[in-house]
Amino acid sequence: MSTTHIFNVEMTCEGCSGAVDRVLGRLKGQGVDSVSISLPEQKVSVTSTLSSDQLLEIIKKTGKKTTYVGSE
Amino acid sequence: MSTTHIFNVEMTCEGCSGAVDRVLGRLKGQGVDSVSISLPEQKVSVTSTLSSDQLLEIIKKTGKKTTYVGSE
Repeated sequence: MSTTHIFNVEMTCEGCSGAVDRVLGRLKGQGVDSVSISLPEQKVSVTSTLSSDQLLEIIKKTGKKTTYVGSE
Repeated sequence: MSTTHIFNVEMTCEGCSGAVDRVLGRLKGQGVDSVSISLPEQKVSVTSTLSSDQLLEIIKKTGKKTTYVGSE
């Protein structure tokens, strides 16, 4: 059962958002169904069977400042 | 015995270089002695007891495209 989790991620350019997209994209088929990123809104939406804590750890590995906002 | 390893890392803004700096900075005292980043040169220099392969894996976790250049 997948849930869409929303994270606030500090991203300042398309290189930043591309890096986050790449890291989450590697997990497609391994718990991540889809990823949607809004650079202007500093928002990353991940539809996944992984928990919000697991996803937060993964996003933090990029070195970006990240907080969990909630699920949809 | 520490070696300075040089990596080419695709970084397009200070958010990008800050993320790489943060990830490597977490390892200070755990194998990483110092980190120096040049955004205009797309260059990351890491003085470390870790191997170049270990450092490459760590930098790749940021989602940035990275290649190993060599040691100094």
